[in-house]
Amino acid sequence: MTPGGRRPGHADTRGEIVDAAKRVFAAKGYDGASLRAVAREAGVDPALVHHYFDGKADLFVAAMALPFDPRSVAAHTAGSSPASMGARIVEGFLTMWDHAEGTGSSFAACVAGMAASTSVADAMREFVAERVWGNTPVEEGESDSPTRHALVSSQLMGLAFTRYIMRVPPVSTATPEEIGRWAGPTLDRYISGPVG
Amino acid sequence: MTPGGRRPGHADTRGEIVDAAKRVFAAKGYDGASLRAVAREAGVDPALVHHYFDGKADLFVAAMALPFDPRSVAAHTAGSSPASMGARIVEGFLTMWDHAEGTGSSFAACVAGMAASTSVADAMREFVAERVWGNTPVEEGESDSPTRHALVSSQLMGLAFTRYIMRVPPVSTATPEEIGRWAGPTLDRYISGPVG
Repeated sequence: MTPGGRRPGHADTRGEIVDAAKRVFAAKGYDGASLRAVAREAGVDPALVHHYFDGKADLFVAAMALPFDPRSVAAHTAGSSPASMGARIVEGFLTMWDHAEGTGSSFAACVAGMAASTSVADAMREFVAERVWGNTPVEEGESDSPTRHALVSSQLMGLAFTRYIMRVPPVSTATPEEIGRWAGPTLDRYISGPVG
Repeated sequence: MTPGGRRPGHADTRGEIVDAAKRVFAAKGYDGASLRAVAREAGVDPALVHHYFDGKADLFVAAMALPFDPRSVAAHTAGSSPASMGARIVEGFLTMWDHAEGTGSSFAACVAGMAASTSVADAMREFVAERVWGNTPVEEGESDSPTRHALVSSQLMGLAFTRYIMRVPPVSTATPEEIGRWAGPTLDRYISGPVG
């Protein structure tokens, strides 16, 4: 038993730590959060956080995983909407982030972590490459796939940056569907059109 | 005379403070920098920094102003290059930031400041609206200009984010000219093509 009285090996402990980390990062940003604060929020011993996570960056990526869960976007892109594939990806990505912002996650905290630490940015890039691109319609094995992946990422991250951080209207005020109509053709070209 | 022996009203003092701020922000990031550290770096009394700047956010925007100087982009977009207007804007924007990164400014510090502080993000949005869009070919007075401005911003910020922070190849390794060819048609459509 830890000083807090929790079970070190309980199946839900890791999930509770991730949930606590999401709240602490949303409240404190990346620089302001600490593993100690996350442990306190989760009601567990700090050693238990160190048992499950390699450090703050590792915990941050885990905490960011849910808003970035590719299945949330996949559910949108697989729908019966008549919109283009690009429009549906934009709509799914922003709907996912709108929901995450509404439940305590923060795109700003995610971005602040990447800007403050190259190891966090590296981890996020690896996370996107490993978990997101495996579920997209961008053809695997094509020699120009990295270019297409990077360009799609650039427009999606730029839209989220403009919507949630710089808050430039009307990108900050429009619905995900509207933004999908504006930027969808961009992603369509990056995915399957002529590039370069 | 201040304790440091400098002239409080000297014509170059403000410029020296801005130069010092650029070095401190590049070294410490936004959260880690302080007006006191900037004053120490500039060799002036902290009261002098407070005399010229309303606070850290104000100083940050001033320090960011040179990398974002719209004349640097205008020099590119006005050139005789056969590339499209969109390609020349992308090339000019990234060339400007490549140069800024090489001389101690940092896109990551700029982004970290915006992500950490809504007042910095507000200031940057106002700065872009007031100083950048006044020099672009996006038609003024059109009812959809805000949409076009916001979409152009989203792709430019997304490309810089992908190049300097997430460092996703080949956007992180290509020349500004190459990226201009890839993303130029996107800006062309946002500037003058069908949107929505």
